[in-house]
Amino acid sequence: MSTQRFGAGIWHFATYVDRYATDGYGEPRSVIEAIDLAGKVRDLSVVDINYPFFGGDFTNEEIKAALDRNKLGVIGVTPEIYTREFRKGAFTNPDPGIRRRAHKLISEACDVVRFFKADYVKLWPGQDGWDYPFQVDHGALWKHSLDGVGQLASENPDLKFVIEYKPREPRVHMSFDSLSRTLLGIEKIGLPNVGILLDFGHALFGGESAADSAQMAIDYGRLFGMDVNDNFRSWDDDLVAGSLHPIELFEFFYVLRKNKWAGVWQLDQFPFREDSVETANHAIDFLKAAARGLDALDIDALKEAQARHDAIGALKIAQKALFGAF
Amino acid sequence: MSTQRFGAGIWHFATYVDRYATDGYGEPRSVIEAIDLAGKVRDLSVVDINYPFFGGDFTNEEIKAALDRNKLGVIGVTPEIYTREFRKGAFTNPDPGIRRRAHKLISEACDVVRFFKADYVKLWPGQDGWDYPFQVDHGALWKHSLDGVGQLASENPDLKFVIEYKPREPRVHMSFDSLSRTLLGIEKIGLPNVGILLDFGHALFGGESAADSAQMAIDYGRLFGMDVNDNFRSWDDDLVAGSLHPIELFEFFYVLRKNKWAGVWQLDQFPFREDSVETANHAIDFLKAAARGLDALDIDALKEAQARHDAIGALKIAQKALFGAF
Amino acid sequence: MSTQRFGAGIWHFATYVDRYATDGYGEPRSVIEAIDLAGKVRDLSVVDINYPFFGGDFTNEEIKAALDRNKLGVIGVTPEIYTREFRKGAFTNPDPGIRRRAHKLISEACDVVRFFKADYVKLWPGQDGWDYPFQVDHGALWKHSLDGVGQLASENPDLKFVIEYKPREPRVHMSFDSLSRTLLGIEKIGLPNVGILLDFGHALFGGESAADSAQMAIDYGRLFGMDVNDNFRSWDDDLVAGSLHPIELFEFFYVLRKNKWAGVWQLDQFPFREDSVETANHAIDFLKAAARGLDALDIDALKEAQARHDAIGALKIAQKALFGAF
Amino acid sequence: MSTQRFGAGIWHFATYVDRYATDGYGEPRSVIEAIDLAGKVRDLSVVDINYPFFGGDFTNEEIKAALDRNKLGVIGVTPEIYTREFRKGAFTNPDPGIRRRAHKLISEACDVVRFFKADYVKLWPGQDGWDYPFQVDHGALWKHSLDGVGQLASENPDLKFVIEYKPREPRVHMSFDSLSRTLLGIEKIGLPNVGILLDFGHALFGGESAADSAQMAIDYGRLFGMDVNDNFRSWDDDLVAGSLHPIELFEFFYVLRKNKWAGVWQLDQFPFREDSVETANHAIDFLKAAARGLDALDIDALKEAQARHDAIGALKIAQKALFGAF
Repeated sequence: MSTQRFGAGIWHFATYVDRYATDGYGEPRSVIEAIDLAGKVRDLSVVDINYPFFGGDFTNEEIKAALDRNKLGVIGVTPEIYTREFRKGAFTNPDPGIRRRAHKLISEACDVVRFFKADYVKLWPGQDGWDYPFQVDHGALWKHSLDGVGQLASENPDLKFVIEYKPREPRVHMSFDSLSRTLLGIEKIGLPNVGILLDFGHALFGGESAADSAQMAIDYGRLFGMDVNDNFRSWDDDLVAGSLHPIELFEFFYVLRKNKWAGVWQLDQFPFREDSVETANHAIDFLKAAARGLDALDIDALKEAQARHDAIGALKIAQKALFGAF
Repeated sequence: MSTQRFGAGIWHFATYVDRYATDGYGEPRSVIEAIDLAGKVRDLSVVDINYPFFGGDFTNEEIKAALDRNKLGVIGVTPEIYTREFRKGAFTNPDPGIRRRAHKLISEACDVVRFFKADYVKLWPGQDGWDYPFQVDHGALWKHSLDGVGQLASENPDLKFVIEYKPREPRVHMSFDSLSRTLLGIEKIGLPNVGILLDFGHALFGGESAADSAQMAIDYGRLFGMDVNDNFRSWDDDLVAGSLHPIELFEFFYVLRKNKWAGVWQLDQFPFREDSVETANHAIDFLKAAARGLDALDIDALKEAQARHDAIGALKIAQKALFGAF
Repeated sequence: MSTQRFGAGIWHFATYVDRYATDGYGEPRSVIEAIDLAGKVRDLSVVDINYPFFGGDFTNEEIKAALDRNKLGVIGVTPEIYTREFRKGAFTNPDPGIRRRAHKLISEACDVVRFFKADYVKLWPGQDGWDYPFQVDHGALWKHSLDGVGQLASENPDLKFVIEYKPREPRVHMSFDSLSRTLLGIEKIGLPNVGILLDFGHALFGGESAADSAQMAIDYGRLFGMDVNDNFRSWDDDLVAGSLHPIELFEFFYVLRKNKWAGVWQLDQFPFREDSVETANHAIDFLKAAARGLDALDIDALKEAQARHDAIGALKIAQKALFGAF
Repeated sequence: MSTQRFGAGIWHFATYVDRYATDGYGEPRSVIEAIDLAGKVRDLSVVDINYPFFGGDFTNEEIKAALDRNKLGVIGVTPEIYTREFRKGAFTNPDPGIRRRAHKLISEACDVVRFFKADYVKLWPGQDGWDYPFQVDHGALWKHSLDGVGQLASENPDLKFVIEYKPREPRVHMSFDSLSRTLLGIEKIGLPNVGILLDFGHALFGGESAADSAQMAIDYGRLFGMDVNDNFRSWDDDLVAGSLHPIELFEFFYVLRKNKWAGVWQLDQFPFREDSVETANHAIDFLKAAARGLDALDIDALKEAQARHDAIGALKIAQKALFGAF
């Protein structure tokens, strides 16, 4: 597994605010400072970058210089379609002017993807959805979601678009809330360049088995990206990968390898109160152990146990491989 | 709304066991006794009947006689594919012999549907899924689910099949776990006679908005049935409809009427410790009030509020209509 | 019920940020502007005010002038012990210097309470707790919580302190996480001037029946305050009161009246995307209807049904009273 | 750790029914057969036995003979106060005759405890609670719970009673729902011979940190027993220990050892679809690894990290010790 590449959302190295600590969990950092922190992480190859670039007025070239000196590439670009302007939705905003503004912002992000030769535009429509019963016309809302994504995908056939689903937050209910719903939408859009970014924690939060979700996305040819973290299953805590649910994370990796899915293993963690570099390093150490665990896994015995749906037998094999890799 | 018809699963009038009260929450009842209780409910037109018939060896004709004397029709037949034999799955059982046995049992249920001229065979594969990470090959499991349903649907083109999804129980994770997943599967099967039975409580349990789920199922032409109850959102409590989440239930009915969906409003309640007839009557009283509430709803004002995603405005209109109907 | 008084946290009329909409859900407002908005709400008598005063450098006198012109009193003062400085805890911070700073800030808030002749200092230690297994010494953490509160209560015997518990957020697990845990702590502190502020939504979020929690707090003589809102049971959504769980909210009010608890009914809502004044008015309209519902409640019949644990019978009485009040 | 003793509830070796598989997940077994299965588990020293003995009419002496030939002792006796008769509660049943019957049954169980020289009577009042808002008078219900337990404890001062709390199931809400609530009740009862049996999975299900709950129970001198299993945090799945949440289970054991709590580590698992003996063996293998992990834990470094609330540092130490023990 010496060839497995690791990545991270650049926001991993930012600081955060929330509705209580409105003064932030640390001094604000610019994207340049965040890139320099990312550069300190062992074995990080690529980052996903928010657009607009945070913390200052930077050109693509300035970002590139910072990335280059830290030996980092760009895997994706995440347009910020969840800020104040888009608080009632980006693709689904009741105001057509705001919907156009979302389209324009994402179109700009497309050019950033081209500049950096990144893999994809990442769409995370966190404000698209609803809060209350009766608030929206559900059919119209979903149509707007698909129209918005579809228009971008057809206008930019040279690029890939990934949708990152999540059950909720900041919206009380997000339109792209689950693997299956997002796949349904993508099939309806019917374009080859729209896929899914599967966040392990979002699957967990939604009561999915991330391994099962990965298999399904792969079977539809739509698994374009992934990232990992951990949580207590009832919220998107973005804790350090492997901390709470190591076996389920290991099964997720197993399904990826079984299907020869060869993408980057990315981190989407929010170390509110922790050191970002140490948190990233710790996660990557876990991921490397998991990769060694996959090498050690007795695949034949596992398949034989799975053929009988033998839970204890399969678990024994998986625990031995993963824990033995530490 | 004088024409709205009401139904119930016949198990509403049975007694229950669970893993603690293994001696049951009451004296066992035969399906005949249950039908006679159902007959005591005000305004019940149809029932969904388990097959094999519980509590004795009854012929179709005997069941029909009991139904006739209680002026009840049959809306659906539910083959019991979740008993001991099927504890590791019906469609997805690792043993092909058990899968064949499930197919045979459901085929028999098809004949019962024909006998009673019921609307559909109801498939509720509660044991199809998994309990532990690594237990199953997720791709193979899903394929078995779709193959099993697809075979039945193609062998019985004169009948409709409805799949009732639920996140879990008795299996820790059910394969048909959500509206979207089930729709994905149905679209893959690609036959016109497979649809969804949307249980309001299962949607709630899965973090769905039942109104949104209904709209989606209707948009795919797959909403073949529905039933209602209530729960605390984290388990399938099967409490009396309207008791906990009246506004969300009202929104569900609103979406049905808005789309001119004209099916039966059914009860799927488990009155473990309550009187079955009183519980059914109380639910139907709520449903009738909700139907009157729909009549009173200021649709134009609601649509106008929804066009602005105006949560408080829409809520005000909905509360006024529903509560005013009591 | 013409005498029932209503209140609100002044933050109801602020705007908010979260980790995504870092530029806020609206233009920042000063506490003075928030007070002027609160003044527009029908039938609001008192507010709970954050300390330090947000949005500017205001004196107590300036705040008082704003309150006076809006005919508002102060029920409580909430020291902000959950901002950046306190991100690893106020009472339980590993740094004793920060613990002292929390004590100093709360002591200043005590003087603000005295100035405004408010009812209590509200302690909401949202950063006191932990995020990960193994992160803290649980015994030491709890001791610090109780020592911190106990010292303040003994130093300020002329004032009342209320602890507002919540399962989590912003900390992944809060020390004061539930009614029972908080009561345990208060009994251990053993001072008469420490009590509980029961937030209906926090009880719901924690899987409690708020009615049951209120009864317990009253039985211990510790229910010093309350506030209301609503949520989807799995997060502190702070939605408008009565929107999702009207019957449970009504039961909460019933327990208060049954015990002749005569305090203010307060709002703790966060209208991220809604108009604050309209949201407050809508909630208060619901509260007034609930108060009328209590007047209409057939108490004798209810008690009789409860004596038999007759769920359907009791529900029927409650629904009739509440919905009939609309 | 060669001296750590292991135990199991004898129901681990029974078969089960639920509301769907009413014909059971396997052939019914008598308690004698279950004991003979328990005897096949490596390193099981004691069992907790239901009373009345299931599956036949057995004398204490017959049970003892079966236990003796399997070299098993009895740690506790669990009176079945959750069967049909008690479906509306044992201690809190609205019918005083049923409350007396519960008292009588538990009194008989006391004699069984004396006969087997077991450690305690285990009270698991799974039917004591409520299902619906407005169903019960919460104050009266709680009083009945405490009176019922208190009377038994004062009548049998030679015995210990343990209360096993759980958020819910079979009742929608259990009166003894959490660690803190149960401690509050025990302190109110005020007798030395009432304590808590802490089930790891119940703590997890209730959103508690089992480690924190254990510390709290120990600090009150009330941790009389424990058992382990695992679940998906939202239901009492009773899966095999260590399967999903190994680090949290390890922290639980750490707190026990840190406090020199020297009781038996028991299993409370329900292998619905698995082989009971294999499931028990697998769990005990995990527990032994965890015990070795405790031996290997760098306690000084851990305490130093905890003193700083250093989540990543502490986690690293814990993961190394636990996973390294495999």
